[in-house]
Amino acid sequence: MSYKNSIPYTYLRDHAFNMRWAEVDPEVIPLTAADTDLPISKDISDAIITESLHQLFPYGPAQGLVTYREAIALHFNNTKTCKINAKQILATNSAATALQDWCNHFLRPGDEVLIPDPVDFLLGYCAEKAGATVIRVAAHKDWNEDEWSNHVSANTKAIFICHPHNPLGFSYDRKSLQKIYNFALKQNLLLLSDEVWSDVVLSDEFVSMAAIGSQSWVIYGLSKGFGLAGLRIGAIIGPNESDIQSIMDSQGYNRTTQGVSTLSQIAATAAMNSAYARIDFIQQMRVNAEYVFQRLSNEQSFFEVSKPTSTFVFWMKHPDSWDTLELTQKLELEAKVKLVPGLPLWFGPGAKGHVRMSCATSLPVLEEALNRIIAWTKSN
Amino acid sequence: MSYKNSIPYTYLRDHAFNMRWAEVDPEVIPLTAADTDLPISKDISDAIITESLHQLFPYGPAQGLVTYREAIALHFNNTKTCKINAKQILATNSAATALQDWCNHFLRPGDEVLIPDPVDFLLGYCAEKAGATVIRVAAHKDWNEDEWSNHVSANTKAIFICHPHNPLGFSYDRKSLQKIYNFALKQNLLLLSDEVWSDVVLSDEFVSMAAIGSQSWVIYGLSKGFGLAGLRIGAIIGPNESDIQSIMDSQGYNRTTQGVSTLSQIAATAAMNSAYARIDFIQQMRVNAEYVFQRLSNEQSFFEVSKPTSTFVFWMKHPDSWDTLELTQKLELEAKVKLVPGLPLWFGPGAKGHVRMSCATSLPVLEEALNRIIAWTKSN
Repeated sequence: MSYKNSIPYTYLRDHAFNMRWAEVDPEVIPLTAADTDLPISKDISDAIITESLHQLFPYGPAQGLVTYREAIALHFNNTKTCKINAKQILATNSAATALQDWCNHFLRPGDEVLIPDPVDFLLGYCAEKAGATVIRVAAHKDWNEDEWSNHVSANTKAIFICHPHNPLGFSYDRKSLQKIYNFALKQNLLLLSDEVWSDVVLSDEFVSMAAIGSQSWVIYGLSKGFGLAGLRIGAIIGPNESDIQSIMDSQGYNRTTQGVSTLSQIAATAAMNSAYARIDFIQQMRVNAEYVFQRLSNEQSFFEVSKPTSTFVFWMKHPDSWDTLELTQKLELEAKVKLVPGLPLWFGPGAKGHVRMSCATSLPVLEEALNRIIAWTKSN
Repeated sequence: MSYKNSIPYTYLRDHAFNMRWAEVDPEVIPLTAADTDLPISKDISDAIITESLHQLFPYGPAQGLVTYREAIALHFNNTKTCKINAKQILATNSAATALQDWCNHFLRPGDEVLIPDPVDFLLGYCAEKAGATVIRVAAHKDWNEDEWSNHVSANTKAIFICHPHNPLGFSYDRKSLQKIYNFALKQNLLLLSDEVWSDVVLSDEFVSMAAIGSQSWVIYGLSKGFGLAGLRIGAIIGPNESDIQSIMDSQGYNRTTQGVSTLSQIAATAAMNSAYARIDFIQQMRVNAEYVFQRLSNEQSFFEVSKPTSTFVFWMKHPDSWDTLELTQKLELEAKVKLVPGLPLWFGPGAKGHVRMSCATSLPVLEEALNRIIAWTKSN
């Protein structure tokens, strides 16, 4: 499939929200929320259509369809070096919901949670919503125990990682994961790995935290790698069935106040079971990432960048002379490209001096966006 | 459409959960959870298919698609005597989620909430989950202010009604609704009307609480009247846009931890906009309700019943000599029909001595179930 001419931007202008096409001025290119412009696999839409032809949408099971949970287990076992099973898995209404439910279940006021800095806002947001206090520790690809153990107190309850890391664009290697796992065990901390980006691995070797040891918790979702953000479909992967059942009891899954569309589960199952659903997309992201990296490196825009080895976002350092928010506002108004400012709200204080750019669009759109950004930075 | 021979029970045996076909012994007929066996309108499946052919599922708007919210407003204005607009509406991941989010937003430990008794468990469950104390007041079709004002204290924060009433099977008339509304205003209580059943009105005239006055809150969902339980699609209808925005802020809608599948919203929009999606179904429910009523009244089963004027459930009084749970267990084991026992867990203490039976299946299946129930009650 060539993505070059196949993207219906007219459709996206009406349908893509969360800081994207439907929420910006018509002249602006939004390289903002980590959601792709590229079409999903036909295997997914075919599965939705086949299911709809039954004309029946009865209640699904509280834990999620067995077929969905089995597809996740197989997908993690095949592509993320795991040995997990469907009983350890809970279907959730997106990865974000999964994270919030996990926090609501485990965290209480007074608890402290260690999270990387910078990192996607949801890790801190969900922990704080549950009443916990967030302690931020500088994020590096080579995970350093000393830096983290300095922040452990008697109140520390959990450690979160984002793996692959948004916005820094890398996956941890097995050695770092093992160090993190051992640290959590030694300090008696709950360990949660946000792996919503784990299907977008460009040049890393991806190992799930669930493959490292049986005490890990993993958050998963299909919005990044399979383009299903609108269907709100994700999962919690836990140590065992009884831990999953405890979350279901406390968070309303066994009483229907929480749950997931069965049709979204069926779409996601088709996505993971398809041999082709991701291949073209990931290959295109490798091409796009290389293209962005070459242009920003070679054409003297004022941004400093490195190429992501996982995810489809660039974490771009701007000159210190600029205020980050003002920079993104001017880029949107004058260059007509919208990026995400590295504000504490979105990524923590460690985001200072950075903006984030998604490259999950067609090459022609990316080319136009880079033309605009580079020209603008040269004259500012 | 004739429903007589069109129900694919083989499919339901694999797909209908929540105490239904997929969760009972193959010989058992489950007239349990309030979910229909009848196929949904082709207008709904056609809309899902058309949308899927775009092969794009980007993030939807936090409040829900405008088209979905406009369809709800039109549907309430056309069929429930309202004058509401899309800005007052928040799309939610089912009516149950709507109720829980509302409770989490408004209720705190120490608050008291007045609810009818008996009533669907979710009203009490969600209030208690939010930390509030539930005060139960006997439910009658003719609402009596004196009975309710006796239970008001300095801590009373809200009054809930279930309208149409599950399990009692009636809608309140305009006069009762006005009395409830005036009572809530006078006592300075939040007023919430659970109208998830409001599309299943057999012989009542349905007036939404949102039509009575601008301070009402309404919970809505498409699981009962349109057969979309599996798609988890509902809404909160509030007094105005700013109240809705407050809930969105507090419950994570503006940060993606809460939200609804756009495809479920599109299915629901087609359902409400269709001229035909409900007509056959409601007509069939009238036939079914009459059939059940005649047989249980005329054939000397030991149940006392009245015919529901709204909803598709029968609230059946059994002889005092029976323990309710034991009765339903024996009915399932021996008569091979599963009903919902009137336990405090499911309906409150006011459910004592009753069982609930759904009639949302085909007439042949209903006939067989009644044959079994009546024969069994005559020999027990």
